[in-house]
Amino acid sequence: MPVLVMKFGGTSVANIDRIRRAAKRVGVEVAKGYDVIVIVSAMAGKTNELVGWVNDISPLHDAREYDAVVSSGENVTAGLMALVLQDMEIPARSWQGWQVPLRTNSAHSAARIEDIPTDNISAKFAEGMRVAVVAGFQGVSPEGRITTLGRGGSDTTAVAFAAAFGAERCDIYTDVDGVYTTDPRISAKARKLDRIAFEEMLELASLGAKVLQTRSVELAMRYNVRLRVLSSFEEPSDEAGTLVCAEEEIMESNVVSGIAYSREEAKMTLVSVADRPGIAAAIFGPLAEAGVNVDMIIQNIAEAGRTDMTFSCPTDQVKRAEKALSEAKAAGHINYRDLIADTDVAKVSAVGIGMRSQSGVAAKMFKTLSDEGINIKVIATSEIKISVLIDRKYMELAVQALHDAFGLDKAA
Amino acid sequence: MPVLVMKFGGTSVANIDRIRRAAKRVGVEVAKGYDVIVIVSAMAGKTNELVGWVNDISPLHDAREYDAVVSSGENVTAGLMALVLQDMEIPARSWQGWQVPLRTNSAHSAARIEDIPTDNISAKFAEGMRVAVVAGFQGVSPEGRITTLGRGGSDTTAVAFAAAFGAERCDIYTDVDGVYTTDPRISAKARKLDRIAFEEMLELASLGAKVLQTRSVELAMRYNVRLRVLSSFEEPSDEAGTLVCAEEEIMESNVVSGIAYSREEAKMTLVSVADRPGIAAAIFGPLAEAGVNVDMIIQNIAEAGRTDMTFSCPTDQVKRAEKALSEAKAAGHINYRDLIADTDVAKVSAVGIGMRSQSGVAAKMFKTLSDEGINIKVIATSEIKISVLIDRKYMELAVQALHDAFGLDKAA
Repeated sequence: MPVLVMKFGGTSVANIDRIRRAAKRVGVEVAKGYDVIVIVSAMAGKTNELVGWVNDISPLHDAREYDAVVSSGENVTAGLMALVLQDMEIPARSWQGWQVPLRTNSAHSAARIEDIPTDNISAKFAEGMRVAVVAGFQGVSPEGRITTLGRGGSDTTAVAFAAAFGAERCDIYTDVDGVYTTDPRISAKARKLDRIAFEEMLELASLGAKVLQTRSVELAMRYNVRLRVLSSFEEPSDEAGTLVCAEEEIMESNVVSGIAYSREEAKMTLVSVADRPGIAAAIFGPLAEAGVNVDMIIQNIAEAGRTDMTFSCPTDQVKRAEKALSEAKAAGHINYRDLIADTDVAKVSAVGIGMRSQSGVAAKMFKTLSDEGINIKVIATSEIKISVLIDRKYMELAVQALHDAFGLDKAA
Repeated sequence: MPVLVMKFGGTSVANIDRIRRAAKRVGVEVAKGYDVIVIVSAMAGKTNELVGWVNDISPLHDAREYDAVVSSGENVTAGLMALVLQDMEIPARSWQGWQVPLRTNSAHSAARIEDIPTDNISAKFAEGMRVAVVAGFQGVSPEGRITTLGRGGSDTTAVAFAAAFGAERCDIYTDVDGVYTTDPRISAKARKLDRIAFEEMLELASLGAKVLQTRSVELAMRYNVRLRVLSSFEEPSDEAGTLVCAEEEIMESNVVSGIAYSREEAKMTLVSVADRPGIAAAIFGPLAEAGVNVDMIIQNIAEAGRTDMTFSCPTDQVKRAEKALSEAKAAGHINYRDLIADTDVAKVSAVGIGMRSQSGVAAKMFKTLSDEGINIKVIATSEIKISVLIDRKYMELAVQALHDAFGLDKAA
């Protein structure tokens, strides 16, 4: 029988009533003839409680013990979901990560999946079991210890199972009903997308649209797993949610698929850096070592032999960046006159695979912002994305204006 | 290095502060030079929460899923305890049941321990680890599924580890400071025992003194594991608590070591049973099949060819007993005139290994009760125990009178 993977997030399994509701959706797919693999998160709030205890003991904790503790929430949900399904007379059983076994490397708390043997679960399907409920977010290391995949790792678990079992689709049930052209809280004209390409979803995810864990989308793209994002709080239908799929499956689309934004970006400028070959490496090497995630980078030649170097990074990494750069300066590796951190900025991005084949998108974006009197501080582009840093106070205005300009309130 | 097993119950690990307090006790034993195996229960209340969810889903649940769910509380405590110990700079790590692996049979929710390989943990001790924190109450079946040992199973886990590792002692930390000559809530003269023999402890446990799980005492007796019961809320000392040990380790003792009682016992009388060979089997066979735990049994010849048969069983099994007996009557297997259930009784018992060598204990017990005007309804004796059923309203009076009569307020 064809296999379907269904993943339920924490709010979708927050209590026994919600687990029953989720189980009913599973029952619908079983009735259609699917063998279903259900991936569950911990009941909403449970993982935070566990993480709180661990941090209460020590902020510098052994990641192996952290993983052993925080993985327990998913085990509880898996067992409860199996019991609810059995109560509905659907043959089901639960699997914890080590029972599958979902094998990972030993990078505790951020482990990477290495292997998912299918024989164990497939044998049960062959015996008549209809639903395998698997605890998300967790695996087992080569040393036999419990690992976790990082927060939101249940999405990645789901996609990995879909890839391993050649599932027809991987449905991610969450508390939003799909992927939108932009954040509906910012633009009332935001429209749910029926389909979106993996690459676009990746850009949107990394730009702050927190529907799916970025890694899960990367994995889906690599193994061409069709992902559907949908709400567990709406009536089910085959048209529900948004399908994240290969570009080839999307017949028509707007040039721009979505407008994303992030308030968590800061702009850092090194003023009057002594310019020489290797200066970029001398600046960004120490930042990388300090764990600063640099996003955009711009270099301006201000005067002969001197340059201004501007970059953006997450707001909460500004202090770390300042420390790394002043240490590099003190050590004589770089030389700059001033370091200016501007945390009062926002990043706004237009994303769309249509940009590859259509020119003029950047020009339209710049003109739209200019018409609104919004000054662009930094520009960065990729094949399917244009991002700008602007004053934070203009962020909502920019998102709304761009959403209109690219006609995102209308279907392609 | 010598091995010590320390077990902490739910109230002793109810929150992070209490876990820290328990860890300090572990630190004291580590400082003395012990390699310590710590067995932990779930944080107080957690297992009940999990059991509640399972019962909410279905009273008739799959015991395999029940075990997978309810075992998670111990895993959390094990990880947290390991983290606290590490924070105290004591080399420690946690083990879940399947990681040891603690192998059990497949009797889910009431599994029996079959094997505890020591190589895994011993190797870590050899590498310098000082504390192995093991999640209590759980194991893994031959099918690779999680099993639990029944409520209170962490005591049994602790004793089994002590036996497997040849531990010098197994310390059970709980919320009482030892085993008493009787319930201090009933007699202000109750005195903590320094030592008690395994056999006596077994009788007391089965009679309702709920300090230790009966199975854990049986196991300790079989493998001669010295068990110490002590409070985690008192200052530690080598003299703290009560040592449960072999008779040979107890130099002097009173003839009677303790007075136990139970309110949960009912008296059932089958009036005018047609007497014939095999009638006892015809009565007690169906009761056993119905899962009724019959304790005392008395047969009185009332008239020629007829007999009255009286037995006691837990109060909450009375309905089940009545059903089984009336079905046996309807099927013609037995014949009786009336079935009288008296739930207004209590069982009071005197327990002591000294009874083996000293006569007159029963006579003294009966006279003491008679002097107080208390009528005895049923008597049952074993080698080291005399039990009587009396009207429940006299229970406290009987306990106090017997405690005085056998001089239990004074040390031997």
